[in-house]
Amino acid sequence: MAVSTKPPSGTRDFLPAELFRRRHVVSIIERTYQRYGFVPLQTPAFENLPVLLGKYGDEGDRLVFRILRRGEALARVLASDEAGEGELADLGLRYDLTVPLARVVAQHRDLPRYFRRYQIQPVWRADRPARGRFREFFQCDADIVGAVGRVAEVEVCAAVIDALIALGFAQVTLKINHRALLSGLIAEAGIAAEAEATALTALDKRDKVGDDGVLAELAGRGIGDEQGRALLSLCTLPDAGGEPALAVARLGESLSTEAGRRGAAELGELFALLGATPAGTHAVFAPELARGLGYYTGPIFELAVPDLAGSLGGGGRYDGLIGMFGKADIPAVGFSLGLERILLVMEERKMMPAFAAGPDAVVCWMSQTRAAAIAVAHALRAENLAVEIYPEDHKLKKQLQYASSAAAKAVAIVGEDEAASAEVTLKHLATGDQRRVPQADAAAAIKAWS
Amino acid sequence: MAVSTKPPSGTRDFLPAELFRRRHVVSIIERTYQRYGFVPLQTPAFENLPVLLGKYGDEGDRLVFRILRRGEALARVLASDEAGEGELADLGLRYDLTVPLARVVAQHRDLPRYFRRYQIQPVWRADRPARGRFREFFQCDADIVGAVGRVAEVEVCAAVIDALIALGFAQVTLKINHRALLSGLIAEAGIAAEAEATALTALDKRDKVGDDGVLAELAGRGIGDEQGRALLSLCTLPDAGGEPALAVARLGESLSTEAGRRGAAELGELFALLGATPAGTHAVFAPELARGLGYYTGPIFELAVPDLAGSLGGGGRYDGLIGMFGKADIPAVGFSLGLERILLVMEERKMMPAFAAGPDAVVCWMSQTRAAAIAVAHALRAENLAVEIYPEDHKLKKQLQYASSAAAKAVAIVGEDEAASAEVTLKHLATGDQRRVPQADAAAAIKAWS
Repeated sequence: MAVSTKPPSGTRDFLPAELFRRRHVVSIIERTYQRYGFVPLQTPAFENLPVLLGKYGDEGDRLVFRILRRGEALARVLASDEAGEGELADLGLRYDLTVPLARVVAQHRDLPRYFRRYQIQPVWRADRPARGRFREFFQCDADIVGAVGRVAEVEVCAAVIDALIALGFAQVTLKINHRALLSGLIAEAGIAAEAEATALTALDKRDKVGDDGVLAELAGRGIGDEQGRALLSLCTLPDAGGEPALAVARLGESLSTEAGRRGAAELGELFALLGATPAGTHAVFAPELARGLGYYTGPIFELAVPDLAGSLGGGGRYDGLIGMFGKADIPAVGFSLGLERILLVMEERKMMPAFAAGPDAVVCWMSQTRAAAIAVAHALRAENLAVEIYPEDHKLKKQLQYASSAAAKAVAIVGEDEAASAEVTLKHLATGDQRRVPQADAAAAIKAWS
Repeated sequence: MAVSTKPPSGTRDFLPAELFRRRHVVSIIERTYQRYGFVPLQTPAFENLPVLLGKYGDEGDRLVFRILRRGEALARVLASDEAGEGELADLGLRYDLTVPLARVVAQHRDLPRYFRRYQIQPVWRADRPARGRFREFFQCDADIVGAVGRVAEVEVCAAVIDALIALGFAQVTLKINHRALLSGLIAEAGIAAEAEATALTALDKRDKVGDDGVLAELAGRGIGDEQGRALLSLCTLPDAGGEPALAVARLGESLSTEAGRRGAAELGELFALLGATPAGTHAVFAPELARGLGYYTGPIFELAVPDLAGSLGGGGRYDGLIGMFGKADIPAVGFSLGLERILLVMEERKMMPAFAAGPDAVVCWMSQTRAAAIAVAHALRAENLAVEIYPEDHKLKKQLQYASSAAAKAVAIVGEDEAASAEVTLKHLATGDQRRVPQADAAAAIKAWS
């Protein structure tokens, strides 16, 4: 019985050429986060299920990969009449990087008073795989835990914009809105506070389904056409000459709830401070931005580029999530970049540099010179060259063909003559340039070739 | 109901200080593997269960974490009478890095003729957690696929020894044996070929349980005392003045089976070639070394240090594994380093360098200078300094206390005077040295402090 050798549905094998591209992007993001004082964190691939469930909404709970109980615990469940999904599994795969951070902060009380952490790890969601949508994908998160003010919000926004600029994204839009402002707009439209989550969910789809789609969804949830149109009208950018702080101020003046006015005031402050950072020219006020996740409590962010439906990343303030773990409420704000989305755009736009995948040299040998060739290879490696020794006793022609197919920069041939005189014949594969040099000079000669 | 905020049993949160240590070790191993021409591979966290099962023995199969089926597929299994462990799960977490490599090689037929891959990723085993034994731990593997000769074996051995030397392990022993030689020794002892696996399993425990323990286990499996003693005597290093090639040759002369003589000949060749590499002085012949895993077919390796029970890593040749995926048999040899074991020894021996965990500077500000402070921080970051902006509107004393607790190198104070004159007051926290400089000179001044 042949076993399928494909990776599981929605997952990928990352071969070397693809990994060089992924690492290029990750290392630029990582170095940028480090310049903003973020320090690394890694959490386990799986969490106890109660840590994950109830944080992402019903849809999120359904998409968590669950791990079967083991041994006697599994036998007990199977023997009982209660063997449902809830009893059979005790662990779940990481679904995002925010909930594990919240758990870590609740658990480790000796963290810095203001904990700036970045985390770049895979997450897993049992979503239906589609083009660009995977079941295993990577998030690159930067969060500041412990601070309530605008500065922390400015820092995470500036960090992700700086990272994208370093990657070559000159044109990226940082959409900003505020959950309290949205709450005020929903109240202003005459929608009851109990229907706020429903209204947010419908509004979140405006980009995809248009105004009529939003109105239809609202109607289906019992929110009348008049209120729906009022909400859509309120959630439309006022004309303010492209000046977001001014647009926010204009909208804020019209609001009657305290939450709405507070949201507008905080956004005004945020836009003013962003002007002192690399994010300033990218930030726009997006009153229709709602963000799907339930745990946001203040400013919310999303990154858009013209040639991608969907976002490169998003984030916001979530002051209640850490308190869900039964410890003190601790404020937090963060931003998450989606690695796969960034790679998709960079490859389509040909923003990715070329990577030399081959070794600096392949060392070739004859039956009688195998040990001498091994010694030459180690001398080259001691000079920090990446070196393969051809592994089989084959004719030289075959060895040279392999070196060429492996995209090696050079071959280093240790024949009997070379071995006898402690020399090596070097050949630069791109130009055909060939020379015989003392073994001690070989590393420098290979390095001199471009 | 309070949810536990501990990581799941047998797993760990890696906080920044621990991650700096782990990355230090990983990056040295990675750079060494790269010098040997190995290129990176990453595979998904989970595999389809049939890929994993039947590769690690019964005990291994029991230790695979299994992922519950989802949605309708789960409902169908639960509704049937067949809801056992085998039906409830369709995926399993990665158990080692060798079987995923074998699957990748069987799947991707466009890989280089000789594929040198390294892979550094976590693996998961549902083992009982104990001191130094985790359910999530990292392996650092280097394998060469496609070559049958001794050179490939020499390369993986030299690569791991070179990596350990670069980490500071001067005293490490590379134990080497050969499955075919062992097979010959087992035959020579009068043990039937059918009992070979049993004999290997018992012999593998010699280190832990001693000769009497091995004899007891052999007796329990129906292998007589005389044969057991003969095997132990054969699997004892002949006196050869510490010269492994000589010891192997002496042992080989006494063997009557073809497999045994072939194993001895290959080992002799291997020891001779290792002499041309950094591994030469570390290699010893270990005729009692058996290695647990079933898939080895040729030379087998294990790394020992005096102050650790158990090994730092192991490997061997496995020419049959890739063929188990129903494609052509492809030869392969590899070595796996255990990251946690290496870290344990390095920390106990205090081999780990100190890492500066704090930022280069914390920027402090007053209520009126917040935007100016943000601009100063970004100017410092543009000079590649790691900079935090203090995130709250607090008294300067509290800001300085935080900078000190965060192990910052310096603080950069932007008060009203400084903002007005485009200056900044810098303070070096280790010495108390303080100076006021133009903002344009601040980065250079901070870099000049040690």
